[in-house]
Amino acid sequence: MAAETEPKKIIIDTDPGIDDAMAIFLALQSPEVEVIGLTTIFGNVYTTLATRNALHLLEVAGRTDIPVAEGSHVTSTNGTKLRVADFVHGVDGLGNQNFPPPKGKPIEESAASFLVHQAKVNPGKVTVVALGPLTNIALAIQLDPEFAKNIGQILILGGAFAVNGNVNPAAEANIFGDPEAADVVFTSGADVLAVGINVTHQVVLTESDREKLASSNGKFVQYLNKILDVYFSYHREAYNVKGVYLHDPTVVLAAVDPSLVTCIEGIVRVQTSGITRGITILYNKQKRFAEINEWSNKPTVKVAVTVDAPRVMKLVMDRLVDS
Amino acid sequence: MAAETEPKKIIIDTDPGIDDAMAIFLALQSPEVEVIGLTTIFGNVYTTLATRNALHLLEVAGRTDIPVAEGSHVTSTNGTKLRVADFVHGVDGLGNQNFPPPKGKPIEESAASFLVHQAKVNPGKVTVVALGPLTNIALAIQLDPEFAKNIGQILILGGAFAVNGNVNPAAEANIFGDPEAADVVFTSGADVLAVGINVTHQVVLTESDREKLASSNGKFVQYLNKILDVYFSYHREAYNVKGVYLHDPTVVLAAVDPSLVTCIEGIVRVQTSGITRGITILYNKQKRFAEINEWSNKPTVKVAVTVDAPRVMKLVMDRLVDS
Repeated sequence: MAAETEPKKIIIDTDPGIDDAMAIFLALQSPEVEVIGLTTIFGNVYTTLATRNALHLLEVAGRTDIPVAEGSHVTSTNGTKLRVADFVHGVDGLGNQNFPPPKGKPIEESAASFLVHQAKVNPGKVTVVALGPLTNIALAIQLDPEFAKNIGQILILGGAFAVNGNVNPAAEANIFGDPEAADVVFTSGADVLAVGINVTHQVVLTESDREKLASSNGKFVQYLNKILDVYFSYHREAYNVKGVYLHDPTVVLAAVDPSLVTCIEGIVRVQTSGITRGITILYNKQKRFAEINEWSNKPTVKVAVTVDAPRVMKLVMDRLVDS
Repeated sequence: MAAETEPKKIIIDTDPGIDDAMAIFLALQSPEVEVIGLTTIFGNVYTTLATRNALHLLEVAGRTDIPVAEGSHVTSTNGTKLRVADFVHGVDGLGNQNFPPPKGKPIEESAASFLVHQAKVNPGKVTVVALGPLTNIALAIQLDPEFAKNIGQILILGGAFAVNGNVNPAAEANIFGDPEAADVVFTSGADVLAVGINVTHQVVLTESDREKLASSNGKFVQYLNKILDVYFSYHREAYNVKGVYLHDPTVVLAAVDPSLVTCIEGIVRVQTSGITRGITILYNKQKRFAEINEWSNKPTVKVAVTVDAPRVMKLVMDRLVDS
């Protein structure tokens, strides 16, 4: 009985980021999971700022007991120019609020080493919730040949399966941020579940949801309400929607309650060059191809295809209002 | 009144091919269109054999009045090895039936030159129905800067929009056959309508349809019934379906009656390298991207998204049985 109700250990690999902040707070509010660490990565901001923001968010939450391990400052291929989405989240990643610098510091261990170590001491028990480019996860896989087996699950916010990307018509931002790393992770043989924007674009926090949140006194709610302006402006501009997509919160909640999404299994490869660099192609195994191809004999992963958006939104609202 | 009922002039660019044979016969049986020529291309077979088969099919139909113009023997990039799908259609392209060589010859004019010429003398009035790789069409566009304007419509069997390809998980065979040419055609500014396998896989000739055909005396029906064995075997093996997809017939019938498909408009680009070489990515214009990308400022095309499959099948059966 005790074993069944033991919370799931999760490490959140994150580039905060406005929806990262909401996702981290939701995880901290969810008894089903125990956040055993944050690892940081470039994406919404550069890695240095991601680390600063991760420490800051844990201080806001009063959870400085949770270690932060700093991740890679460069992509797998190194030479590639980093793409940082400051036009989505503000130059500070947190809605241009000029928060004071955090008091805490990251641990000495690198993100990749922390991931390897935690997976080794808790084999099969740790879920990585990867909310940014997959550089740290690929480094962990390369650092320890056993990592893919030791890790419980790698839950990825990434990919645009059968829909347009959000960086360009082909690519989603997290995969585009380090396509080579993503391909390593998808073909690693680990238990991977990818939740792409085909799913997260169905989970929208509307203006009226935000008003409901703003009228509550929860500490997380008041903080989030402050930083959300930039994110709403971006969505109005880019998508012509009066609301914001809850990418990261959806993926964290899929760790909290896996029944929120349904998945299909198949083989995912990532294009690493050309005009569709960063595209994720899922082979659904419906056709038996006459010729060997780049998907042949690779391990399968799970890809989310539907989400119970009303139930996700209810969880988001309930858990934040009660903060 | 006369102008309204004048049949639509079509040129079929073809690589016969079992379903090409059916498509050509359907066009010849359809008073709504006038086949003013066949142009040939590699794909299901090499170009030389495509020309031989095109001449042969017109002789079977008693329509040797229709000119055949031979197309390119090589892809746009030349160096690329041709991919010929003899495992789908038989080594002769027509179900391994050892038909006698045709008596006729192709005209002296090349396919690209024929296309340019016909579009020039009938500006806005000629529809090209492209059933193979797009090499000839791209050559016509390059040969005459006015071709894209002069041609009425380019109706393409090609692409796999938001679904797996049929050569590999990324690419559909006709686009894969010459991705560079396809990208030229999609970005040419011509009135392009692409019908991909996301649509044609919905149009299935079942075993019982075939039995119905076999019991009729129509000359086309008896011929097609003979050559269909190989095509059924391939579909059973590759897709585990007891039926065959009517790719080419669907596209010809979309020329005969455009209301059989519904379309969306967007910008299509083709990846020309890497593991997703030949993939077609349609930008649906729902998002306004922050950065310039390879889809920016390119002309739009139409892409079929639904097909009235029962109505297509009824047309196929009715027009072939009455042959």
